[in-house]
Amino acid sequence: MLIPLVRALAVAAPPPSLGDNTGDLDRLKKALAPQLAGAMPVVPYHRLSKVAERFRAAGFTGVAIVNNMVGAPVLVDFLPQPQPVLAGMALDLGTTHLEATLLDLATGATLARADLENGQIRFGADILTRIHHAGKEEGLTELHRAVIGSVNALAVELARISGLPVAEIRALSVSGNTSMVHFFLNINPYHLCREPYIPMVNAPDPCLAGELKLVIHPAAPVWLLPSVGSYFGGDLISGVLASGLDQQPETCMLIDVGTNAEVIVGNREWLIACAGAAGPALEGGVARMGMRAGPGAIEHVQIDPDSGEIRYETIGKGKPKGLCGSGLIDLVAELYLTRQIDIRGKFRPKAAGDRLIQGSEGWQFVVVPGEDSADGQPVVLGQVDLDALMRSKAAMYAILTTLTNQVGVAFGDLHRIYVAGAFGRHISPRQAIVLGMLPDLPLATYEPVGNSSLVGAQRILLESQARERSLELVRKITYIELNVNQEFMLRFSGSRFIPHTDHALFPSVPFFDGE
Amino acid sequence: MLIPLVRALAVAAPPPSLGDNTGDLDRLKKALAPQLAGAMPVVPYHRLSKVAERFRAAGFTGVAIVNNMVGAPVLVDFLPQPQPVLAGMALDLGTTHLEATLLDLATGATLARADLENGQIRFGADILTRIHHAGKEEGLTELHRAVIGSVNALAVELARISGLPVAEIRALSVSGNTSMVHFFLNINPYHLCREPYIPMVNAPDPCLAGELKLVIHPAAPVWLLPSVGSYFGGDLISGVLASGLDQQPETCMLIDVGTNAEVIVGNREWLIACAGAAGPALEGGVARMGMRAGPGAIEHVQIDPDSGEIRYETIGKGKPKGLCGSGLIDLVAELYLTRQIDIRGKFRPKAAGDRLIQGSEGWQFVVVPGEDSADGQPVVLGQVDLDALMRSKAAMYAILTTLTNQVGVAFGDLHRIYVAGAFGRHISPRQAIVLGMLPDLPLATYEPVGNSSLVGAQRILLESQARERSLELVRKITYIELNVNQEFMLRFSGSRFIPHTDHALFPSVPFFDGE
Repeated sequence: MLIPLVRALAVAAPPPSLGDNTGDLDRLKKALAPQLAGAMPVVPYHRLSKVAERFRAAGFTGVAIVNNMVGAPVLVDFLPQPQPVLAGMALDLGTTHLEATLLDLATGATLARADLENGQIRFGADILTRIHHAGKEEGLTELHRAVIGSVNALAVELARISGLPVAEIRALSVSGNTSMVHFFLNINPYHLCREPYIPMVNAPDPCLAGELKLVIHPAAPVWLLPSVGSYFGGDLISGVLASGLDQQPETCMLIDVGTNAEVIVGNREWLIACAGAAGPALEGGVARMGMRAGPGAIEHVQIDPDSGEIRYETIGKGKPKGLCGSGLIDLVAELYLTRQIDIRGKFRPKAAGDRLIQGSEGWQFVVVPGEDSADGQPVVLGQVDLDALMRSKAAMYAILTTLTNQVGVAFGDLHRIYVAGAFGRHISPRQAIVLGMLPDLPLATYEPVGNSSLVGAQRILLESQARERSLELVRKITYIELNVNQEFMLRFSGSRFIPHTDHALFPSVPFFDGE
Repeated sequence: MLIPLVRALAVAAPPPSLGDNTGDLDRLKKALAPQLAGAMPVVPYHRLSKVAERFRAAGFTGVAIVNNMVGAPVLVDFLPQPQPVLAGMALDLGTTHLEATLLDLATGATLARADLENGQIRFGADILTRIHHAGKEEGLTELHRAVIGSVNALAVELARISGLPVAEIRALSVSGNTSMVHFFLNINPYHLCREPYIPMVNAPDPCLAGELKLVIHPAAPVWLLPSVGSYFGGDLISGVLASGLDQQPETCMLIDVGTNAEVIVGNREWLIACAGAAGPALEGGVARMGMRAGPGAIEHVQIDPDSGEIRYETIGKGKPKGLCGSGLIDLVAELYLTRQIDIRGKFRPKAAGDRLIQGSEGWQFVVVPGEDSADGQPVVLGQVDLDALMRSKAAMYAILTTLTNQVGVAFGDLHRIYVAGAFGRHISPRQAIVLGMLPDLPLATYEPVGNSSLVGAQRILLESQARERSLELVRKITYIELNVNQEFMLRFSGSRFIPHTDHALFPSVPFFDGE
């Protein structure tokens, strides 16, 4: 049965009498028990008076609001009539961006959708800078307040769109990386980035929104997706939930590329995972012209091999502002296929012609001239950005080979490869194969799963099984630490060419020998 | 197994490594689980950082402090070394008086004992006055603060005696009547004294001491004995636990007389209870010379039938200050046996002689002349006090007969009658029989059980079975409301004579016909 994180349960209790002097709250619990598989709900002390008084004021008939945590159900409120909608917020708590939906918990319908930049960015664009900031006096408090502020702003926005009071949002599920979860809970992230990289907690017990000073209903349960390790967070567990990797008879793989690349391979019997720094070049903020996949981002690029003409598509169809991850991969693959870069990822000035200009940090390739761009500035790809992408793609392939090697699975054995994250939403697997970033498999093997972090959080809101599965996954997943893995370092070196030093691994990709 | 409410469990977890990256808190939970019958402990949000940081600081080895609530165990602290003593406070939360012991939770040994007047008395000596006070603006808050203040003062005193810091008291069990529990929890007692007399809650879920602003350890569980009704509180459930009434094959009875008389009859199969106003005359504050059973209280009285000489014993052997309940019963029984009062409980001036003086409110009998008393004031028994006692004893006997009649049990069928409360500690059942207050049974039937409210609270601290039994008792006990019982009113009238209008009921008591 799909039990949402919070339910509104209709109750009609017999009124108290001289022949039945059971206390108000005990009467309510007793009337509820048959709907809770006989479990006696617990009432937290600070909700006791409110629940009992509202039950009595409603004439012992109405709707009980019950949080369905793992363990005993928690009775938190009583309403005289059913609310038109019992709403819960699912949150993808990203390092750079927060994305959320408001769901009708009874039907699963989406009531609103919104996103927002992470308010922590002013303390550092990347997680490491923020973890260091957390070590300063008041640093953790600042980071905690910033993220709570962003979540609150997002909740207010969802409420505005849906027309519900923000305090009527009755549940929150949060899917984020391990560091973001630490900041969100205001707990010290110090050891996350220090060997042996240990979180303070993987699976925090659910708390109530009031304890975190959230503006949604104070008794709303806050359910955080658990993490497997410092670099394998709840967002990845969400990915597994969303893709169903843990329920499949065939061995599949899930790849999520954000700031890090996280990969998990397995089936319903076993799951093995690792993570590594692979993504910086693919996210906004690192590549100079890089940007998040949003309006104005070039998401696809084609270069005519004869004329050298560049065709591109932007998200939202407007004028281009920059390149998102998938656009960058398309561009570099096309530059390789048109031989404007060599197998080391270096510009070939003769081939690139007058699109290549000398900038302060070396060559820059003009993708879109200033007169065609959104802001009058040309969209360019620098050699520096290209080098970063080469490192990322090498890391990515090295991660994939190291992981599959650990478990003795060949790429060809993989039934399906789910591609998650902002990366997965827009990427063309074919172009990633050309670069040697993803293994050379039939394109049908690849299946984008969109923002699976958000999808997982939505599942958590709606399905008790997803909540149970998520906790089981923490126990089930074996995590390999790549930060100290020798094999990974060797494989990384071999992967720093397009498509690879061993081009037999990429039979479908043309190989251009020499310069 | 006897699991105390809080346990200190030794843990030696493997330290984290690159090969074992489990989060700190998850590591601790995992290491603890085998000692918790496999149950995963829950960590409340506000304890998360503290527990995880202390576990790490201690090198992943030390002692976990686990609250053993009904349901999931709650992990609240971690210490590098076992404490010499893990202490819990058992509290009898009386209307007039608080009595408490500090126990070593591991051994059950008593570390300290203390008592204190209930700080709520300034808002009213009796519960009804306080319930009315709670209806005024800030009234409930005042009453709540007063009782919390008293409990805190008592905790400080227990800590002082035992030499432990008060914040190191790690558990609290509370046994009190239903109104006192409402005040303690700061919840509205309005309906307790209004037909049909319904508590806001019978069995509140345990909370933590910090939520009630208690000065003991903020994460100490506060476990309240549940009530059966407004007039049958947790103190009575304690009495059942202490006497074992619910586990006996033979039908027994428990009588507790404080401000009210509460009676429960039954065996391990069934339990039936009722309560009624019976005690006011027997507690300090109502009879003019009445006082609590404490130093200086006359607890036993004998009158020489020939000389009329009065012999008495005081608690503590000092000079007398007044009469406690048992002294009052002795005195009136002796006055009857020496024919100084008649069967209606009225003074017989001719027989009483010069001990009887005319006061502003009628006759007064001088028990102790001023020159022999503690404060120079004579200890007297007025006709007014005598009338009150006659009403109380009549109510008591009427309650007992009404209850046994309900279930078709004759007094002679009772295997044992446990007598609890301040009343039970000192009373001579023989004299109560003379008055017609208790049934005319062999004296061996009566067994005093002392302050069973406190004993029950102690059991709750030390034994998980007692906690489970107490909750089961709420479901098991059938409560009869006497406030509207016709039969009770009839029986009350018949009981307003010494020993009874039907003196065949009291064959062992001499009957003096006429004036």
